[in-house]
Amino acid sequence: MATLGLIEYEDAGPEVRAVYDDIMATRKTDWINNFWKAIAHDPATLKRTWESIKQVMAPGALDPLTKELIYVAVSVTNGCNYCIASHTASARNKGMTDAMFLELQAVVGMANETNRLAAGYQVEVDERFKM
Amino acid sequence: MATLGLIEYEDAGPEVRAVYDDIMATRKTDWINNFWKAIAHDPATLKRTWESIKQVMAPGALDPLTKELIYVAVSVTNGCNYCIASHTASARNKGMTDAMFLELQAVVGMANETNRLAAGYQVEVDERFKM
Amino acid sequence: MATLGLIEYEDAGPEVRAVYDDIMATRKTDWINNFWKAIAHDPATLKRTWESIKQVMAPGALDPLTKELIYVAVSVTNGCNYCIASHTASARNKGMTDAMFLELQAVVGMANETNRLAAGYQVEVDERFKM
Amino acid sequence: MATLGLIEYEDAGPEVRAVYDDIMATRKTDWINNFWKAIAHDPATLKRTWESIKQVMAPGALDPLTKELIYVAVSVTNGCNYCIASHTASARNKGMTDAMFLELQAVVGMANETNRLAAGYQVEVDERFKM
Amino acid sequence: MATLGLIEYEDAGPEVRAVYDDIMATRKTDWINNFWKAIAHDPATLKRTWESIKQVMAPGALDPLTKELIYVAVSVTNGCNYCIASHTASARNKGMTDAMFLELQAVVGMANETNRLAAGYQVEVDERFKM
Amino acid sequence: MATLGLIEYEDAGPEVRAVYDDIMATRKTDWINNFWKAIAHDPATLKRTWESIKQVMAPGALDPLTKELIYVAVSVTNGCNYCIASHTASARNKGMTDAMFLELQAVVGMANETNRLAAGYQVEVDERFKM
Repeated sequence: MATLGLIEYEDAGPEVRAVYDDIMATRKTDWINNFWKAIAHDPATLKRTWESIKQVMAPGALDPLTKELIYVAVSVTNGCNYCIASHTASARNKGMTDAMFLELQAVVGMANETNRLAAGYQVEVDERFKM
Repeated sequence: MATLGLIEYEDAGPEVRAVYDDIMATRKTDWINNFWKAIAHDPATLKRTWESIKQVMAPGALDPLTKELIYVAVSVTNGCNYCIASHTASARNKGMTDAMFLELQAVVGMANETNRLAAGYQVEVDERFKM
Repeated sequence: MATLGLIEYEDAGPEVRAVYDDIMATRKTDWINNFWKAIAHDPATLKRTWESIKQVMAPGALDPLTKELIYVAVSVTNGCNYCIASHTASARNKGMTDAMFLELQAVVGMANETNRLAAGYQVEVDERFKM
Repeated sequence: MATLGLIEYEDAGPEVRAVYDDIMATRKTDWINNFWKAIAHDPATLKRTWESIKQVMAPGALDPLTKELIYVAVSVTNGCNYCIASHTASARNKGMTDAMFLELQAVVGMANETNRLAAGYQVEVDERFKM
Repeated sequence: MATLGLIEYEDAGPEVRAVYDDIMATRKTDWINNFWKAIAHDPATLKRTWESIKQVMAPGALDPLTKELIYVAVSVTNGCNYCIASHTASARNKGMTDAMFLELQAVVGMANETNRLAAGYQVEVDERFKM
Repeated sequence: MATLGLIEYEDAGPEVRAVYDDIMATRKTDWINNFWKAIAHDPATLKRTWESIKQVMAPGALDPLTKELIYVAVSVTNGCNYCIASHTASARNKGMTDAMFLELQAVVGMANETNRLAAGYQVEVDERFKM
């Protein structure tokens, strides 16, 4: 169970409720996942993290699905089970097909392999890459 | 310097040259970066790794630029300097603009932050995410 | 279940019991947590690890609570669920309040974010930091 | 060199200068380290990251030095050279003595060791830690 | 549960069955573990990964048990619970005794500790090691 | 440069010299590498770390070369440049051939790849592995 427990909507103060409301409105959903309920014990971190996520994940030069795939890639590389589960679900909501999921994992796998080969062989950065 | 040094094209045997040729043909370039020259001491690994990369990074359900962004995200999360340098360059060659680069880094940063918050607060996976 | 199982006090040999006794005496507690019971299959590692921990976590230039917070920060960054659970509990025993816990997590989250931004942007170390 | 180069104060727009000014005022210093100059290519990320850092690192339930030690611990665990260099310097500015530095490293080292032992032995979380 | 579920032998197409058959024949066993059943949703990745593993883990300059110990060491360092469980089992099948297991964990633990000490103290690589 | 600088033999106190002497005697060499000179600022950590390493790396159920290969595998997975350089050199001193080095890297690379695939596909541990 989460270290300090989860704060449900009905038990939340106005500051936390305002963030919950914004999460649900922004995501067009009617529930709040455990991550937010856990960090709600720290309303400042809840608000800051949500606003940062909202800003960073908004459509821009990269579309929201691409951003979500990147989020999954990081979560897999860090071995964060919660984040893998939640962001895989988010990616699907944003249109990730099974075929995309499979290719995503394959790229993540290969990147992790070659990252270690580059380190293990002590490969120096090419001059051309430094420009 | 790379642990076993780098194998230049002119010093390479036919098996290694064949891979180098395929890399250059596939990437429409006339040079080989240090990563391949370092692992060329093991022709089986060179061939296997290149063929895996070629397969995995080919256009499919995800386009090559998206795959390269994912590659950078993994490399940044692993702190692999060589891979960050080389795949950032590759991503640019495939069309990554500065604006895309900036959004990519912002997503990678936030994902790393929330990965740790989820772990640190010991958040349990929501039932809905398990389906 | 732990790979080799857990060694309970009543099943332990004198060498292991001596370490268990010292753990309980040092920590002023009457039980041994699973970590020690798992590694007790290797009495040399049990003894070496306990003595190292005892030395390192003792009050010194840093107080025991600060050291425990650092331990949690590392465990969260490594995503070690066992260690997050056990050292969060230890930190509380040593006086960590909820407010401290929340600030600790916030710092760990931000540090992980900026660590990746520094790597992703390939930032060079400032000359002033090299001195 | 940083991927997109560094933005010096004299070349910065008003939005970036405002952040630089606040960094220098808050830290009571007259220079900006490379991290901020690198991410200044993305003024939104610069502003968001700085304001988050300022909030998170401010005195609270934990004092600024303790927070800085935690920052170093995370950076070491992630192997982020830039961050190790910059936050070790920051910690010294905030009062970290050599003796504190040495104890910090010792704790970080032991935590990394026991994190892996817990994982390698597949130790289950004690029931008592779940409460 | 695995994101896309597991593909059992009886539900598998000929391409996947061929890999499953080769896994069982190579490993002289009559069952397939979940890892392969999970990635079988992507027959190309299944085949590529299995053939790479088969090639890499075959006896060569290093014997299969040594390779398996290395596999466990990496999995522990990455905190990959599935891989720790499966490769610890594989190592035992290949002859790892309890005594070997214990020494393996001790080395992994120490390596993780000194890796961080080297980073934390910002130790420069000795000239002699660069040759 | 190392954070606190390096302590040369001629500048070391008797406690540090005793460890340096033991390192050189045990390793049958006439020099001390930077790692030890850096942590020598903390004689207790120097002594504890060296004695732990000496105990852990001694011949036992695993031979010294196998242990050194495991050390390299961990160091590569952690991306610790200093440790990769120093332990690759140590492994060579203990008999690692180029062929062994190449196979080691290939195994490390594959293990890192499949670790992430297992996490990314959210594969559950097989019941058989839990026994």
